[in-house]
Formats: sequence, C-alpha cells, structure tokens
Amino acid sequence: MLSKFFPKEFNFFEFFDKQALNLVDAAACFREIVALPEVSEEAQRKMKEIERNGDKMAYAIMDHLNKTFITPFDREDIHQLANEMDEVNDIMNTVVARMRLYKLKGPDANMVQFAELITQAVNVISGAVAGLRDMKNMNNILKACVEVGNLESLGDRLRDSALMELFEKEKDPIQVIKWKEIYQIAETALDICKHVAHNIESILVKQA
Amino acid sequence: MLSKFFPKEFNFFEFFDKQALNLVDAAACFREIVALPEVSEEAQRKMKEIERNGDKMAYAIMDHLNKTFITPFDREDIHQLANEMDEVNDIMNTVVARMRLYKLKGPDANMVQFAELITQAVNVISGAVAGLRDMKNMNNILKACVEVGNLESLGDRLRDSALMELFEKEKDPIQVIKWKEIYQIAETALDICKHVAHNIESILVKQA
Amino acid sequence: MLSKFFPKEFNFFEFFDKQALNLVDAAACFREIVALPEVSEEAQRKMKEIERNGDKMAYAIMDHLNKTFITPFDREDIHQLANEMDEVNDIMNTVVARMRLYKLKGPDANMVQFAELITQAVNVISGAVAGLRDMKNMNNILKACVEVGNLESLGDRLRDSALMELFEKEKDPIQVIKWKEIYQIAETALDICKHVAHNIESILVKQA
Repeated sequence: MLSKFFPKEFNFFEFFDKQALNLVDAAACFREIVALPEVSEEAQRKMKEIERNGDKMAYAIMDHLNKTFITPFDREDIHQLANEMDEVNDIMNTVVARMRLYKLKGPDANMVQFAELITQAVNVISGAVAGLRDMKNMNNILKACVEVGNLESLGDRLRDSALMELFEKEKDPIQVIKWKEIYQIAETALDICKHVAHNIESILVKQA
Repeated sequence: MLSKFFPKEFNFFEFFDKQALNLVDAAACFREIVALPEVSEEAQRKMKEIERNGDKMAYAIMDHLNKTFITPFDREDIHQLANEMDEVNDIMNTVVARMRLYKLKGPDANMVQFAELITQAVNVISGAVAGLRDMKNMNNILKACVEVGNLESLGDRLRDSALMELFEKEKDPIQVIKWKEIYQIAETALDICKHVAHNIESILVKQA
Repeated sequence: MLSKFFPKEFNFFEFFDKQALNLVDAAACFREIVALPEVSEEAQRKMKEIERNGDKMAYAIMDHLNKTFITPFDREDIHQLANEMDEVNDIMNTVVARMRLYKLKGPDANMVQFAELITQAVNVISGAVAGLRDMKNMNNILKACVEVGNLESLGDRLRDSALMELFEKEKDPIQVIKWKEIYQIAETALDICKHVAHNIESILVKQA
C-alpha cells in the first residue's frame, strides 16, 4: 500500500504530551486512593479507566509509528518512550488492584510517600516530554532527567525503610507477604520513570 | 566469509511452525501434569525434554538469522518471535519444576484452569504463525491475535481469583508463599503469549 | 554539531576491559562479604562503591556510543554488553544491601557457593571480553561462553537445592520469605552472566 509512504499528518509530540498528561492524571488518582482507609470498587474502577485510556494512547503511537516513514526521532526511541510511559501507568493500576485484592487497610504512610514521589516524577517527565519539541529546552530537559533520577533514588531508600519497618513491626507473616509485594511493585514505578528519563536523554543526545 | 551472503536455503516459516508445534506439545504435557496428584520425576523429565527441544529450535532460528542476509520479515521481529515462543515454553517448565520442588499436591483447580488457558493460547498462536506465509490470511491472523489477548485477560482474572482464594482459605504461610509464586509464574505464560500475538501483529502491519 | 562525526578516539575494547575488571572486583568483594557472620555497614559501603564505579564505566560507554559514528561492532551489541555487565554488578550490590536490611546471619553455605559460581563466571567473561580484540581468539572465546552457560546451569541447581533445603529446615515463615528472595536474586546474577555470554557469541558470529 502506498499509504505508508504518504501517511496522514501525525504529530508524535502531541501524542506524547497526551500520554504524559494521562500519566499525571493516573498519579493524582493513585495518590488519592492510597490516602483512603481502603480501596473501594469505585476507586479501583477509576484507576483502571485511566490506565485503559493510557493503553489507547500508547497503542495509537505504536500504530502510527508502524505506518509512518519519517519520524521526528529514532523509531526505537519513540517505541520505547510510549511503552515505558505506559508501563508506569500499568504499575500504579497493579498496585491499586493488588491492594484491593489483599484487602489491605490504609492509609499507609509509606504508600502515601510512594504516591508523592511518583506524582513528582511524572510531573517532571510531563514537562520534559513537552520540551522535546524545541532543542532550546535542552538544558532544562537534562535537568529534569537528573531530577527523575534523584526521585528514583529516594524511591529505593523509601522501599528499603518500608521493608525494614515491615519486618520489624509486623509479626503476621501473611501481612508481611502482602505488604512486601506492594512496596516492591510501587518502587518499580519509579524505576520505570528513570528509564523514561534515560530514554529522553538518549533522544536529546542524538539530536544534538 | 562469503557464506553469509550466500546462505543455504533456510525457511523461517517452517522453523516457526516447528517451534509453535513444540509449544502445543509443551502445553499438552503441562495440562496432563497439573491434573495429577503430584509431579513425578518422570513427568518433570518429560516436560524438561520438550523444553530442551524448544531451546534447540529457537537456537536454530537465531543461528540462521545471524547468517542470513535476506529474511522474510524484520530481523528484529524474527529474533523476538523465536525468543518469546521459547519463553512460554520455559515458563511451563519452571512451573512444573517448582511444583515438584515445593512438593505441592494436585490437582489444583486453578492450575487446571491455567493449563486450559495456556493450551488454548498456544493453539491459537500456532495457527497464526502457520498463516504468516500468506497475506491472504491477514484477517484470520489478526482475529487470532485478539483472541490471545482475551485469553491473557482471563489469565489475569484467574490469577486474581486464585490469589484471593489462597489468602482466604490457606492459613499456613509457607503454603501461601509456595502457591502464590506458582500462580504468579503461571500467569506470566499468558502475558508472554500476548507478547507473541503483538509481535505477530507488528509483522503483519509492516507487510501490509 | 560536527563533533559527532569526528569523535575523539575512543577505544571500546579498553572500556569493556575496565568494566569486566570492575566486575571481577565486585565478585571478589561479594565473596568476601557472604563469608562473614553479618553484612557490616562498611562492607555494604565498599560493595556500593564498586557498583557506582561500574555505573560510571557503563555510562561512559553509552555516552561515547551515542557520539561515535564508527564502532568496532554492532551499536546494539555494544549497548547491550555494557548494560548487562552493569546489571550483574547491580545484582550483587542488591543482594548485599538486602542481606543487611534483613539482618540475615552468615555465613550461609549456599551463598558462599553462589559467590563462587559468580566469581568464576565473571572471570571467564573478563577473559572473553579481552579476547574480542582479535578474531584469532574466536575458539577460546566460544569455549568461554559455553563455560558461562555451564556455570549458569549449576546456579539453577544451586538455587533449587537451596530453596528445597530452606523449605525443609526453616520453620519460621519470615526467615523463609527473606532467604527465598536472597537466593532467587543471587541466581539471577548467573542468568545475566549467561546473557553476557550470548551477547559475546552474537558479536563473534557477526564478525566471522
């Protein structure tokens, strides 16, 4: 089909912006949920809906990538950026679903802190992604990537202190099993945010 | 060496068919095993043998990929398809080995259901892979990929209900630790089946 | 910037050598630590420092890769080799940090054996990486890669026997949770060593 050589106009920047803003919404929803005494069915549904919207956005990017001949930056980088932003969204949704499944009671101070770090990270990412349109923003974007790296380090420390506290205070092994999993999954959201930042850095370096 | 520019004839489609049929065998063996009261040494050996045959097939594909100049579709897609089909096989083998190691007693109704979903998924994949030879099959292949996606969603729900049941009924934390791991690994077999389906879709889109 | 077309001389071989030697140091430090009755703050700091040095080396390789036009082998292979060697280092550091966090008492005979296998694997890798400069070393390098594969198989068996022993002897579920995680993470160090060996094989095959 010739259509793949003459694609309809598709603005990757716009789509990445939408995906990043969806991630900001997801983090806000996540932060609200972990501050409550339990995960209601309604709350889980809302989180899931945001995650599905994110899926659709990532899918649209992939779909256009496959059909587009000329892209503003490396195909592989576009693919990875869309994928990784989607994964952050997935992780928040998984944490919420698992907390409900395990009937865990909140608010848990460690989860509130995880939500805070994730919220900060996705806000910084959203700014960096918006900046990709113009190389004049390079220095600010690189600063943003460093900031995401710092938030990931804080996430590592938070997971460690949360696990230490858990093993010291919680004597019921079943509760230990549940919370340990939740903390470890929550921390991976920040790991993937760091991958997103690396991906953005790599796009910048190639454009420079 | 010139030989890499003039490779011996190698039919990737045939090899992918063989790998997919090996996966169908693996799933059938897996389904038999989880229906028994325990994993015997003999059963584990049979599962392992199928997995090793799968390894050899994946290796043969990779080996020819490295030596072949012209391929029927993207090199990266060939690499990934062989790898991911192999991983589904690995996961079934891991589940069986771990069930034997943990001396878990069967048949467990949830595992029987996992085996059923995995069997359906690899059968659908096998049909889709066979169809890749001819673009006339495109619509049927795309339908097959959607079906694998649906089976993966059922796998997610099955894992969730299995975990919920486990935490409600099983009071021995050691048993909880063992079965939780088994269910979570089993579900990843369906995740990887979905990756295989995505990979097949991506091959189709590029050919279209 | 023109600079990316006229990069300063950068010898990837030298940098991979440095990274491999750093990995040898990391394994030696890891082996010392698991032979002690507990992980001291000092020991953890030493392990972390080696890991940070490894990070810097991997980063330097990535950075030059992005700026360099002509590379001695596939860009993707360079990227992966640097990444995977770094990951082996990360895993050892994670095991040590987690052992300290969990206040686990040593020396544990299984961990001593894991450290032995990892030490052997990274020594073999270091030799193979050094050999990449000259295709005359091809046969020795391929032998080294097979050896790493064998060490990984031994690692699988060690993890299985360690888990079996754990579930048989340890009656405290909390201890089971902690040690199970440690053994499973330790084994992944050998998995990644095998990935490194595959990566080296793939580089060789393409050069042949």
